[in-house]
Amino acid sequence: MENERSSTAGKPIRCKAAVSRKPGEPLVIEEIMVAPPNPQEVRIRIICTSLCYSDITFWKMKDPPAIFPRILGHESIGVVESVGDDVDEFREGDYVIPVFLSDCGDCTDCTSKKSNLCSKFPFQVSPWMPRDGTSRFTDLKGEVLYHFLSVSSFSEFTVVDTANLVKVDPSIPPNRACLLSCGVATGVGAAWKTASVEAGSTVVIFGLGAIGLAVAEGARLCGATRIIGVDINPEKFEIGKKFGITDFVSAKECGSTPVSQVINEMTGGGADYCFECVGLASLVHEAYACCRKGWGKTVVLGVDKPGSQLSFSSFEVLHTGKMLMGSLYGGLKPKYDVPVLLKQYMSKELHLDNFVTHELKFEDINKAFDLLIQGKCLRTVIWMASEKVPPM
Amino acid sequence: MENERSSTAGKPIRCKAAVSRKPGEPLVIEEIMVAPPNPQEVRIRIICTSLCYSDITFWKMKDPPAIFPRILGHESIGVVESVGDDVDEFREGDYVIPVFLSDCGDCTDCTSKKSNLCSKFPFQVSPWMPRDGTSRFTDLKGEVLYHFLSVSSFSEFTVVDTANLVKVDPSIPPNRACLLSCGVATGVGAAWKTASVEAGSTVVIFGLGAIGLAVAEGARLCGATRIIGVDINPEKFEIGKKFGITDFVSAKECGSTPVSQVINEMTGGGADYCFECVGLASLVHEAYACCRKGWGKTVVLGVDKPGSQLSFSSFEVLHTGKMLMGSLYGGLKPKYDVPVLLKQYMSKELHLDNFVTHELKFEDINKAFDLLIQGKCLRTVIWMASEKVPPM
Repeated sequence: MENERSSTAGKPIRCKAAVSRKPGEPLVIEEIMVAPPNPQEVRIRIICTSLCYSDITFWKMKDPPAIFPRILGHESIGVVESVGDDVDEFREGDYVIPVFLSDCGDCTDCTSKKSNLCSKFPFQVSPWMPRDGTSRFTDLKGEVLYHFLSVSSFSEFTVVDTANLVKVDPSIPPNRACLLSCGVATGVGAAWKTASVEAGSTVVIFGLGAIGLAVAEGARLCGATRIIGVDINPEKFEIGKKFGITDFVSAKECGSTPVSQVINEMTGGGADYCFECVGLASLVHEAYACCRKGWGKTVVLGVDKPGSQLSFSSFEVLHTGKMLMGSLYGGLKPKYDVPVLLKQYMSKELHLDNFVTHELKFEDINKAFDLLIQGKCLRTVIWMASEKVPPM
Repeated sequence: MENERSSTAGKPIRCKAAVSRKPGEPLVIEEIMVAPPNPQEVRIRIICTSLCYSDITFWKMKDPPAIFPRILGHESIGVVESVGDDVDEFREGDYVIPVFLSDCGDCTDCTSKKSNLCSKFPFQVSPWMPRDGTSRFTDLKGEVLYHFLSVSSFSEFTVVDTANLVKVDPSIPPNRACLLSCGVATGVGAAWKTASVEAGSTVVIFGLGAIGLAVAEGARLCGATRIIGVDINPEKFEIGKKFGITDFVSAKECGSTPVSQVINEMTGGGADYCFECVGLASLVHEAYACCRKGWGKTVVLGVDKPGSQLSFSSFEVLHTGKMLMGSLYGGLKPKYDVPVLLKQYMSKELHLDNFVTHELKFEDINKAFDLLIQGKCLRTVIWMASEKVPPM
């Protein structure tokens, strides 16, 4: 039996969106038009969205790949309003999580268990829909509004390619599920998939923002027994304890002693796994210097400035048997791994609740920017006007 | 029943050695005194030795860690002449391969399957015996002669720590077994142990000297189906074919096109594994640039100049899911893995014969240096005076 088609299917939808019109200026909540989905696309009613630091980076940025006016937002969950032609995987009413990383299901990478980097739609910060390079958004004057990371969730409705959507169980609380769209999934995945943290191991995490704490959660889930957090803000240790951080190194208090030396002494020769979650080349170097010779893995998660270089002594690389690897979206394959993580959340193995420190109404979205810029939140969930903000 | 003690046990032995007295000058074959082994040491009569490029590096080098007069040589096989106190693992008459990398059997690394980097006796280019920091060699004037890489095989007799010795089956031809002391084992191990090359995969090898060709042999043994060799000397392709090289890229003929681009085109997006066997930071960068996004591994084997740096774009590390690793002695654990490789040689799975391009008498050892410097050989086996040089 076919589902009934929604009354809006095939027609443009007029709805509210928070538009980023100028770099660094507050988002403007305005009415926009969202075109129907093209073939292999899906139009979604967003339930809630959370704010990730990449949104802020591209909101502040003045030069390309930044572009304005744009609809930012890429951590979210929504309900399928209508589907374009040639869409079998989704139907109206499905609950879906959009993911910035594509999973076409067909290319060499998507059909391999070893890669999560789709070759058909390679990761890029494009202002367009991935398949045909056009936009589905216009403002009421008819001006094009640009897409962001194939998601653009700061809108009541958005259009997303089927390669960027994961169908999820509707019983999962949306303000937890949306976290797996980007940052929290990246951290958990980096420990689970990229590094394959072994039970009983020692882990060091540089930077205790949401991603670093998600690495801690992933490491805890994998059975790591010692999880050392490094941050310049000593208050992060109290927060970190909730996420399984067992030891804390205050980078400011190390003085002239390199953090790597402090950690090498604490661990008797280095940690099994080091994760860099800040985005500073110098910290990647420190992480590499305090991962255990013979088998230590250094995983790069932080996004550094364009053009920055990571430098290692050739001697050290050759003689220490260490491994260096990067992790985009934590090595997760969206359509396979997100449902696994959500099941782990429902069975209370994976802890997500503590990541949500604030919940706001859509009209207060700019407050979410302030909170994240000031380092006062981990994740702020922003509920669309059609939803009720639950009590915290 | 105890073996009979050799008549020389416990006494100094006077024998011939090829002494490196001044940087870059021909070795001098002279009579030296070899002291009896201390506790946990073994004195060995060398059967044959082969020449590795590291011998030449330290023979030419004018500054520390070079030191003179020194007995070089670290690829060899010998017979135990006598053992010091507290030696249970070896007895007179045992056939042994000395290895520059220690395997104490007790430390965290030696008891772990994941590391081959002994913590008790870390790898260093020391002029002394590892356990007590003294020498067992003097010349006839009583002057100390320095050790090299815990082996010093350019002598009819040498003393080696038990941590640096592997007992081997005496039926294995010594002029093959000695190859597993260093270079050839390093290459084979890098494919087998460090990279764990998968069957059906594509491998690129930068530099087709003995180590690069040994990587090809290791990759072939692991079932790689495409093995691309890169060298500036096009003659290396004919040689390489004997070792399983299927494709050749002449670096000189690439002109202004980076080798990595040529390989990315040949492979449709990069190789599964890239091995740098030259020792040039720029080539490590090329190797990294043409290993497959999503899962490619770049393995560094070449020894670059002290202080040289490897530099990678932070963006590339984060966004490509590639892995960078170093490989000392191919990740092999000497006492476990060398016997496995020797068994594979005896069962004709591992091909070693083609590595030996020349065999010389001990008195002609300086010719072996010329051959390797001029790139005219892969491995030259040098037979001690007590042995007959077999016909090639």
